Amino acid sequence: MGSSLPIPAEPLLQQYGQGARLCPCANDQLTLVFSQEYPFDLVELEQLLEAVGWSRRPIRRVRKALTHSLLKVGLWRHDARVPRLIGFARCTGDGVFEATVWDVAVHPLYQGNGLGKQMMAYILNALAQMGTERVSLFADPGVVSFYQGQGWDLEPQGHRCAFWYAN
Amino acid sequence: MGSSLPIPAEPLLQQYGQGARLCPCANDQLTLVFSQEYPFDLVELEQLLEAVGWSRRPIRRVRKALTHSLLKVGLWRHDARVPRLIGFARCTGDGVFEATVWDVAVHPLYQGNGLGKQMMAYILNALAQMGTERVSLFADPGVVSFYQGQGWDLEPQGHRCAFWYAN
Repeated sequence: MGSSLPIPAEPLLQQYGQGARLCPCANDQLTLVFSQEYPFDLVELEQLLEAVGWSRRPIRRVRKALTHSLLKVGLWRHDARVPRLIGFARCTGDGVFEATVWDVAVHPLYQGNGLGKQMMAYILNALAQMGTERVSLFADPGVVSFYQGQGWDLEPQGHRCAFWYAN
Repeated sequence: MGSSLPIPAEPLLQQYGQGARLCPCANDQLTLVFSQEYPFDLVELEQLLEAVGWSRRPIRRVRKALTHSLLKVGLWRHDARVPRLIGFARCTGDGVFEATVWDVAVHPLYQGNGLGKQMMAYILNALAQMGTERVSLFADPGVVSFYQGQGWDLEPQGHRCAFWYAN
């Protein structure tokens, strides 16, 4: 399930956590690392999400949402002292029957290199290791083909998605 | 937001928890109570879900999924000694930006009386009290009109739902 991404060398595992994986990348000057453990600077995270065009959200609420998320993944441009956050995604869910993917973002400067696809492979693998049976997401029109191309089932059994907004 | 369901008398609040609410019902011989605190018997819960036609799931995994859920709601047919579970729903999510509703079930003997609608009102109200901005769900073809009739937005902005299955 999911592709097996390369395991980094020991110093990187110590910096980014034992679940860290390398993200293959065309530019061999860059080392890119997926991590669930390297701590987020919430201002840097919001800058990333703003760079992909999402509206800024109060830091306090972002912190609470991350605390309640099942899985948070950062994609880091490695630096021994100051790694830079260039990608992000998170999941909510029970980790058993269901998980739902939200906030998938790759910084515009790094898009078009398959990093989003590697990110999804990393996430599906992590969820599979938890024993999650089914993963869901709500795709914007612009990314429907991105997910279909990776084997996601669009509205299986005629499922429709529905949203309810406060206010 | 949501309808304001009646608050039960003190003895019922002590039995079912301070967040308990009465579920209005045509049959005045019945007292039906929504509760987030009254403990589930997992065998009784699986019998309910089986009665609405879902396949049985291992108790151990159900327990873990409930532990990781943001909100679990039971609809109880009140009895001072042995309340009976006649409805259920749960949510996953971060409780801030997102929550997703799963496993909405009303026992077939009690369907057709608006209990499902009251259940959704109870859930939306509870999520609003947490400060949740947006609630989502995946509707089976048979219940799309049920949710639309209650003000749910079907695939706003062209959202599509996608699923990915282990195995």
